[in-house]
Amino acid sequence: MNYDKDLICENITVDAEGKLLFAGQDTTELARIYETPVYLMDEDYIRKQCRAFKKALEDSFGEDCMVLYASKAASFIKIYEIIAEEGLGTDVVSCGEICTAKKAAFPMEKAFFHSNNKTDRDIAYAMDNGVGYFVTDNEEELFAIEKEASKRGIKQKILLRITPGIDPHTFKAVRTGCVDSKFGSAIETGQAEEITKKALDCEHVELMGFHCHIGSQIEETEIYVRTAEIMLDFIADIRRKTGYETKVLDLGGGFFARYTSEQPVRTPWDYLPNLGEYINASIERLGIPKPMVCIEPGRSIVAEAGMTLYTVGTIKKIPGYKNYVSVDGGMPDNIRFALYGSPYTILPANKMNDISETMTADVVGRCCESGDIIQPNVELPSSMKRGDILACLSTGAYHYSMANNYNRIPRPPVVMLQAGRAYVAVRRETEKDICALDI
Amino acid sequence: MNYDKDLICENITVDAEGKLLFAGQDTTELARIYETPVYLMDEDYIRKQCRAFKKALEDSFGEDCMVLYASKAASFIKIYEIIAEEGLGTDVVSCGEICTAKKAAFPMEKAFFHSNNKTDRDIAYAMDNGVGYFVTDNEEELFAIEKEASKRGIKQKILLRITPGIDPHTFKAVRTGCVDSKFGSAIETGQAEEITKKALDCEHVELMGFHCHIGSQIEETEIYVRTAEIMLDFIADIRRKTGYETKVLDLGGGFFARYTSEQPVRTPWDYLPNLGEYINASIERLGIPKPMVCIEPGRSIVAEAGMTLYTVGTIKKIPGYKNYVSVDGGMPDNIRFALYGSPYTILPANKMNDISETMTADVVGRCCESGDIIQPNVELPSSMKRGDILACLSTGAYHYSMANNYNRIPRPPVVMLQAGRAYVAVRRETEKDICALDI
Repeated sequence: MNYDKDLICENITVDAEGKLLFAGQDTTELARIYETPVYLMDEDYIRKQCRAFKKALEDSFGEDCMVLYASKAASFIKIYEIIAEEGLGTDVVSCGEICTAKKAAFPMEKAFFHSNNKTDRDIAYAMDNGVGYFVTDNEEELFAIEKEASKRGIKQKILLRITPGIDPHTFKAVRTGCVDSKFGSAIETGQAEEITKKALDCEHVELMGFHCHIGSQIEETEIYVRTAEIMLDFIADIRRKTGYETKVLDLGGGFFARYTSEQPVRTPWDYLPNLGEYINASIERLGIPKPMVCIEPGRSIVAEAGMTLYTVGTIKKIPGYKNYVSVDGGMPDNIRFALYGSPYTILPANKMNDISETMTADVVGRCCESGDIIQPNVELPSSMKRGDILACLSTGAYHYSMANNYNRIPRPPVVMLQAGRAYVAVRRETEKDICALDI
Repeated sequence: MNYDKDLICENITVDAEGKLLFAGQDTTELARIYETPVYLMDEDYIRKQCRAFKKALEDSFGEDCMVLYASKAASFIKIYEIIAEEGLGTDVVSCGEICTAKKAAFPMEKAFFHSNNKTDRDIAYAMDNGVGYFVTDNEEELFAIEKEASKRGIKQKILLRITPGIDPHTFKAVRTGCVDSKFGSAIETGQAEEITKKALDCEHVELMGFHCHIGSQIEETEIYVRTAEIMLDFIADIRRKTGYETKVLDLGGGFFARYTSEQPVRTPWDYLPNLGEYINASIERLGIPKPMVCIEPGRSIVAEAGMTLYTVGTIKKIPGYKNYVSVDGGMPDNIRFALYGSPYTILPANKMNDISETMTADVVGRCCESGDIIQPNVELPSSMKRGDILACLSTGAYHYSMANNYNRIPRPPVVMLQAGRAYVAVRRETEKDICALDI
């Protein structure tokens, strides 16, 4: 079978012997050295994406802008080190992410603390660790922040999370910018204006501006432009009513990452120049000062930087029904098909030049659960056998970060690939680790 | 509001002050002592369920039978100690579960090793740890077991996993007994007969009998009876063709546990006497020796033994749209609504006698993800405020075992309740623990 079209990212190639290469390295050799399942992460690709977002944003908005890496996509110490070296800020969503960023000596003044429900402990922890900005979701949180900041005698910088009421035409589970959302305060209901006024009245809070996030896997720049229009109108309206001049406009994330060859290729240049042009013109039209523009790519920085390698175990051919290829991982390391029906590209890493017949098979995991499917209906060489290596592409985002110990299965390591070398960023979990919390 | 109907299990009551009690203990006090989110487990209920299954099975089939606890439902050291004390066997599905059972000094000769895809390492690990029975899924695994057993000069007891082709009318993700399944060998295709003959030819494998599992949350005994019919016909057929006399018939799990008041109450007595009667009569009719009958309840032993307590954070009322009550947990500790749309009963633990107006709200988690919903459309007192305690019922199965660190959120502890006392069986994870694998 010809897999050319399935080499969906530039960091995926094939050598003369039909071995799949990732970041130029032989995946079958990586599987042998690090064992499977294993998460590979292409450090050079991560850095390239960071630079592309930074360059495209600066070119579109000038120097006063910031790319924040949405670290919930993949959060471990090494990734914050890389992000810091590339000059990005980060968004964090919990004490766990703050703790991890701190261990990486991340400059916390460039950390933006999200979440629809920050506990009192979270707020105290984030302040004590010097988190730069609180992206404040709601009034209760605003007052909780005011209280903690007052105790410390500080003025805490915040943004307010606003729901612009945009439906980005992606599926329900990732629609967060609509009015009906657990996140933020809606413009439409007047709640956004109300919380803004309350924030301006807070003594220990410095309102820096507004944040919104409209969803995930957004293919078209028009959705961002429409969001910016709503947000800028809101900013102008607030200025008219209160005189408040917005310093920061954070437009969130949602930039597209590619999982299969049917999906389009998107780069920061597909979104940001258009958006920049629109915002720059609107600011002039509305007569408002130019805010610092932030964006929060997460998935688009790390998804295609990742690949999971599995070893094939059971191959089951049920005549008249279906074929199943079982691997030594599954929903504990990749829950996204079970959770969202997410599409993936699966490649036979040691048989990329196999020109034998193909078979269609469900690639399934090793859990005692029927829903433990990595991807249904995958075309694979019919010569597949126990011991072969399968690669699942684009697993850099929401894989390690969602990994679990279902069926008491240890989590795979994260192995970074950089300029021809490989090193472990997160070590493989063991059975002993899994029992460590048991008393 | 009157919550009487929502006290869905006998271990849930309310005191005079309107505090929710679990296993007779004040949940608000437990929340204060152990903090939230916290998984509570009623040890006495677990033991009661073990005894009920054991008694009902023995009454229906005589002494030669075994209840195996399906430990993937909830696997930690303490639970294997309880199960062992109650005289049950267990099924395990990974080296992680084997390791945990060993740490509990579980009698491994009563452990049955499941999984559709046992790796060579798994097989070696299980043999080295004295696992009694391998529930062998397929031919490749059979030969891998034969090879490892041969190396050790032992004869390994096995069952063969058979797919009887039953659709238990539950939803797709839990339909495992159909012909089209990643599990087992189908009778219909002739593959079950084929693998049986091959197992009988193996020198280092002792075929003890057959296993099947038809799905989850099965309400009616008829489905088990129909399964037994298919399995006994198969056993009789094999006996005619090969002379092999089956010693063990393992009918798997799938017994019902209750999540909401709309669902029926089921006890082991609703299934086993009927099933026993049918099997005893059929054996006589078919003229086959009586096998030892095993069943594998997991969820039905632990689900209603569990309750999760949360502290309420943000309460968001969006006029004309919806209300949201955010809690300090979410999909990291309970992924089952996101994964399956599972129903739950949620109760206001400190306001059970609140007779104020009610509101309908989505109870949502704290993750940066729209799909992070514990349960939509919950009726709660409209007096709910930050700091109130919510209880999610029936969280003893597939909660701690599926827990993850999404958003880098530490996993809650498991606190056992027994005869009026409480103790920690799994301690709370910390931010430091989460970074422990990072290099």
